[in-house]
Amino acid sequence: MINQKLMQIRKLMANRGISAFIVTTSDPHQSEYLADYYKTREFISGFTGSAGTVVITRDEAILWTDGRYFIQAAYELSGSDFELYKMGVPGTMSITEFLLDRVQPGGKIGFDGNCVSYKLYRELLENLDDRMLIGNLDFIDSIWKDRPALPKEKVFIHEIKYTGTSAGRRIEKVREEMETKGVDYYLVSALDDIAYLYCIRGNDISYNPVVFSYAVIEKDRALFFVDLDKLEDDVRDYLDENSIEYREYDEIRNYLSEIPGKSCLLFDPATVNLNTVESVNSNVKLIKSGSIVQNIKAVKNETEINCLKNAYLKDGVALVKFFNWVETGTPTGTVSEVLASKKLLSMREQQSDFIEPSFETIPAYGENAAMPHYSPNPASPVYLKPEGLFLVDSGGQYLDGTTDITRTIALGKLTDDEKKHYTLTLKSHISLASAYFKKGATGYYLDAFARLPLFKYKMDYAHGTGHGVGFFLNVHEGPQSISAVYKDVPIKEGMVVSIEPGLYIDGSHGIRIENIAYVKSIEKNDFGEFLGFEILSIVPIDTRPVIVELLSDEELKWLNDYNKKCYELLSDYLTGSDLMYLEEATKEVIR
Amino acid sequence: MINQKLMQIRKLMANRGISAFIVTTSDPHQSEYLADYYKTREFISGFTGSAGTVVITRDEAILWTDGRYFIQAAYELSGSDFELYKMGVPGTMSITEFLLDRVQPGGKIGFDGNCVSYKLYRELLENLDDRMLIGNLDFIDSIWKDRPALPKEKVFIHEIKYTGTSAGRRIEKVREEMETKGVDYYLVSALDDIAYLYCIRGNDISYNPVVFSYAVIEKDRALFFVDLDKLEDDVRDYLDENSIEYREYDEIRNYLSEIPGKSCLLFDPATVNLNTVESVNSNVKLIKSGSIVQNIKAVKNETEINCLKNAYLKDGVALVKFFNWVETGTPTGTVSEVLASKKLLSMREQQSDFIEPSFETIPAYGENAAMPHYSPNPASPVYLKPEGLFLVDSGGQYLDGTTDITRTIALGKLTDDEKKHYTLTLKSHISLASAYFKKGATGYYLDAFARLPLFKYKMDYAHGTGHGVGFFLNVHEGPQSISAVYKDVPIKEGMVVSIEPGLYIDGSHGIRIENIAYVKSIEKNDFGEFLGFEILSIVPIDTRPVIVELLSDEELKWLNDYNKKCYELLSDYLTGSDLMYLEEATKEVIR
Repeated sequence: MINQKLMQIRKLMANRGISAFIVTTSDPHQSEYLADYYKTREFISGFTGSAGTVVITRDEAILWTDGRYFIQAAYELSGSDFELYKMGVPGTMSITEFLLDRVQPGGKIGFDGNCVSYKLYRELLENLDDRMLIGNLDFIDSIWKDRPALPKEKVFIHEIKYTGTSAGRRIEKVREEMETKGVDYYLVSALDDIAYLYCIRGNDISYNPVVFSYAVIEKDRALFFVDLDKLEDDVRDYLDENSIEYREYDEIRNYLSEIPGKSCLLFDPATVNLNTVESVNSNVKLIKSGSIVQNIKAVKNETEINCLKNAYLKDGVALVKFFNWVETGTPTGTVSEVLASKKLLSMREQQSDFIEPSFETIPAYGENAAMPHYSPNPASPVYLKPEGLFLVDSGGQYLDGTTDITRTIALGKLTDDEKKHYTLTLKSHISLASAYFKKGATGYYLDAFARLPLFKYKMDYAHGTGHGVGFFLNVHEGPQSISAVYKDVPIKEGMVVSIEPGLYIDGSHGIRIENIAYVKSIEKNDFGEFLGFEILSIVPIDTRPVIVELLSDEELKWLNDYNKKCYELLSDYLTGSDLMYLEEATKEVIR
Repeated sequence: MINQKLMQIRKLMANRGISAFIVTTSDPHQSEYLADYYKTREFISGFTGSAGTVVITRDEAILWTDGRYFIQAAYELSGSDFELYKMGVPGTMSITEFLLDRVQPGGKIGFDGNCVSYKLYRELLENLDDRMLIGNLDFIDSIWKDRPALPKEKVFIHEIKYTGTSAGRRIEKVREEMETKGVDYYLVSALDDIAYLYCIRGNDISYNPVVFSYAVIEKDRALFFVDLDKLEDDVRDYLDENSIEYREYDEIRNYLSEIPGKSCLLFDPATVNLNTVESVNSNVKLIKSGSIVQNIKAVKNETEINCLKNAYLKDGVALVKFFNWVETGTPTGTVSEVLASKKLLSMREQQSDFIEPSFETIPAYGENAAMPHYSPNPASPVYLKPEGLFLVDSGGQYLDGTTDITRTIALGKLTDDEKKHYTLTLKSHISLASAYFKKGATGYYLDAFARLPLFKYKMDYAHGTGHGVGFFLNVHEGPQSISAVYKDVPIKEGMVVSIEPGLYIDGSHGIRIENIAYVKSIEKNDFGEFLGFEILSIVPIDTRPVIVELLSDEELKWLNDYNKKCYELLSDYLTGSDLMYLEEATKEVIR
C-alpha cells in the first residue's frame, strides 16, 4: 500500500525530472495541529505522529522524526520501504546533509510550496545551493484519491464579554505598530492570530477553534479571506459593522499580486507559505518580521484574565470530580487509561461553555508516564492499579478560556524513588511559581529558577518548562517560552504561561506538575520593577507522595496555601463524595 | 588650561575642516586599563575616570560617562567648557544622536584610528552615514607637549611550571582552530591573548602584566611584533627556541600590507584598531571573528588550576592578617580607607611571587560601599569606626595566578538592615556557588541562580554577577560572563569566574561577597552532564552580620563548611593573634 504510493510519486518525479521530493508535516498556515486534509505526510508514509518530514528519492524513502516517536514510527513504517532517520541521535544525517549527498548539483528537489513556510524555503535555498528547488508540486494530491474534504465549519463571533477589546480596537493597535514600522500592508497567516484579531472563532482544526483564512490590514482597510460558505448572516453583519471586508479564501493571491508597487508589505516568514509570498507583486517591498498580532495577543487584558479565572474554576471542578472517580474506580480494576480520558472529557462537558479538549489528553499510568507525550494504544488497554503514580495532562476549550493542567496522583503505595522524584518536581514547580523577577527577563532566564532544585540532585527534564497559552485559542501560543533554549522574548505583565517541570524515569515512572499562571507586577522600587506569577489553575496538588523533609518551610507553606485556596474556591461547587475528596486532598500537611 | 587645549584642538579641526572630533578611552589594543601614554581623554578633558568618550565641536565639548562617575566627572569638569552627558539617564542624547544632530550630512567627523577599534568604526559608519569619518587624526599628540613616554619595561618568560602548556603547544592549538576555519593568517591584538599565547609577560600597563605587541600566526610561522629593546638575551633565546620570530612593533603594518592577495586573515574586530586593519593588503579576505586565543585561554589546565590554588592560599593568608590588623586598629581611630589599602598591599607583598595588585583596591567604609566602584579621595580621608560595615575588594598578581576577592566585615554594631542585606547577599552568593548546572548553560542562565534569593525580597544589584579571571593576567577576562545581559557563551569546565553578588543602599551601606571559583564536572548520567563550582578563594566569610533565621539548613551548612575549610587550609600559615583571629572568624555558627 505505502510502497504503491511511493511508486506513484516516483513516476510523477521522473516525469518532472525531480531527484528528491520532500513532504513536510504542515498546512498553508504552519498550524501546530493539522486538519485531515493536510495530513499528507501521514498519507504517504503511514506514520501517524505529530512531527516528521519525508524525503523520497528514486530508490530511497526516509522519514525523519524525533525521540518522542522512535518506537511508534519504527512500528508504523515496518512492512514498507520507508527507513527511519532518528533526529537528535548522533550520527544521523540531517535532511540537508541527506539532500546534499543524494542530489547532484543542478539536480531538482521538489515539494508543495503551499505547505512549506517561506522561512523553511529560504533555509533550504541557503543550504542546498547548486540544487534547484521546485516549489509548486502537489504530487500527493494527484495520487490521493479519497483525500478528505477541507473543513466547512461555520465561523462564529467571540463576544466582547470574553475578549474585552473589539476587533476594531485590535486592528487599530496593529495599525499603530504598522505606522511605527513604516508598513502599508500587513499579511496575517497564523490562524490563531486572525481569530484573535477579528474576534472570531471556527472549528477547522481539532483542539484549535480557528478558521482557514488570511487577514490583511491596510492603512484604512481590513480584509478577511475565507471560504464564504462559512459565514452566516450574523457573522457577515458583524464583519460589516466592523468594516472588515470578506473575500473568498483563494482570492488572497490575486489580491497580493495587485498590491501597488513600492508599497511595504510586512509578514512573518515562519507562518506564510512560499507560494503565497511568491504571489506578491514583485515590486512590493517585503518586510520579514515576527507577527505583530502575536505580540499583542500574548498580553491578556483584564477581561480575558477574569474570564480565565472562571474557566479555570470550572476546569478545577471537573478535575476534582474526575480524580475522585479515578480513585474510587481504580481498585475495581475497570479503569483503563482510555476510559479515564473519556470520563475526563465527560466531566468537562458538564461545565458551561465547554467546547472541546484543547489537546489530546495524556492519561499515563506507571511507566507510561515516563514518556512525556504518551498516547495510549486502544488495542492494548492499560488498567490502573491501586499503586504507583498516574499522570494526567489535559485541557479544555471554553468560550471563556483555554485550560491546560497536569496532575500526577498516587493511586496507592509508592516507591521511595517515586516519592523523592515527585517531591523534587514539586520543588521545581514551586521554585518558579513563587519567584519574582525583573521586568525584561526572558523565559530562558526564568527556566533556570525551575531547574535549580533538580540540578542539585543531578536530575533534569528534557522538555521546556513553560509555553504561552491562548485565550479560547491554541493551547501553545507564542512568542514567549520558558525553556533552556534561549529566545529573546521578555516575559511581560499580562502574559499567560504554563509552569510544568517533570521527572521521567525510563521504564519506571514519570511525574509532571503543571499549573497555568499569568504574569503580574509585584512592586516597583529603587531596584527596578519586579514581576511575579498568579496561578490560574485550581486543582489540589497531591500531597500523599510528598517527602516533607525535602521541602523547606517556605515550600511547605506554598503547598498548603495553594491547596487551601483550591478548597476555598472549589468547595462551593462540589457536593457529596466529591466534596469529601476535595477536603481530604487539601488537608494541611504538617511536619 | 582645559579650555586652552580645546582652543588648540579646534584650530587643528578648522584647518582640516573637521566638524566634530572624538576622543575615546582606549589604546591601540583596546586594553581595559591604559598606560599613561594613552590617557588622551584624560589629557583633553581633565576627567580621570576609567570610562568615557569626548566629542568636541566648534562650540561644544561633551564628555559622556556612566553612573559610576557622574559626581566625580561633574567635579573634575567644573571650571572648563566641558559639559557632562550622563549615559543611561533617560533623555540623555547618545553620542550617535549628538553627532547626527550637530554634524550636517557631508560633514567630517575625525578621530585617532589608531585607538578606535575596527568594530566601533564600523558601527559609526553604519549609524552616521552621509557624514565622513576621518580616522587618521592624532590631534592630541600634536598638542600634548609633555606626553608621557611609551613604557619600556622588559619582557619576561612565564615559566612552564606555571603555564602547564608551552607556547609551542598553544600555537599548535590555534593552528588547529585556524585550519577548521580555513584561515591562513591570524592577527592577535589583545595584549593578554598575546601574553598567554607566547607564555611571556611584561609590565607595560598597571595591574596587567602585558606587553604592547602584536602576534600573527601563520600556517608555519609565528610572529611577535614588539619594541625590541624590551627583549633581553634570555627572552630572545626563548623565542628562538620556540620558533617565534620577533620584529619591531611598528613593523606590523608593513607586514600586513605584504600578506599575499587571496589569503584569509582572521582577526577580532573588537580588539584590532582601524588603522591596523586598513593597512592589510586590500586583496586579502578578512574574517571577523571572536578571538581564538581567548577561548583557549579561558579554559585553565590542571597546572594552572593547581597554581591558582596556591596563589589563593597565599592571598588568604595576606587577607586574614590584613583583616586582623583592621579590626585591631579601627578602635584607635587611626585606620583610614587609604591606609588600609596600603596595609593590604604590604601584606600581599610578604607573599612569595607577588608582583603587584591586580586592580586598584576598593576600601569602602559605611556609605562609601554603596558605590560599587568607589575610590577614596586622598584629600579627605575617611577613618574607620568600630561600627557598620567595611567592604574591601582587592586582588593580587602572583606568578602563580591572579586573585580577586571581596569581603565585607562588621566593624562593630550593625543596623537591622545591614544584617538583613548582608544575609541576603550571602544567600545570593551561596545560591550560585553551590549550584550545579547542565553543560552548555550560559552565564546569563547562571545569573538567575544568584539573583533568585534577592528577587524574593524585591532587591537586586546593578552589576554583573561574575567575570572570567586571567592566570597571572588581566583580572577581567572573557569570553565568559555571568550577567543579566545575555551572551551566547557557555560556562565550560576549567573556566575561572568570580561570584560576586552585592546589595547597595545609597547613602547608607554596601555589601559584596566575592569568591573566585573554577568550573568542574560533577557527574554525567542519564539526565546529561552536570557542572559545578570549586571555590578557589580562601578567606573566611564574616558570620557576625548573619541573621541565622534567614538561612536554610543547607545554606548554614555551606557557610560553616566553607569557613571550616578556610581554617584547615590557612591555620598552618598563621601564628599568634592572626591565628586567633582566624579561629574566631571560622567558628561554627549554630542556630
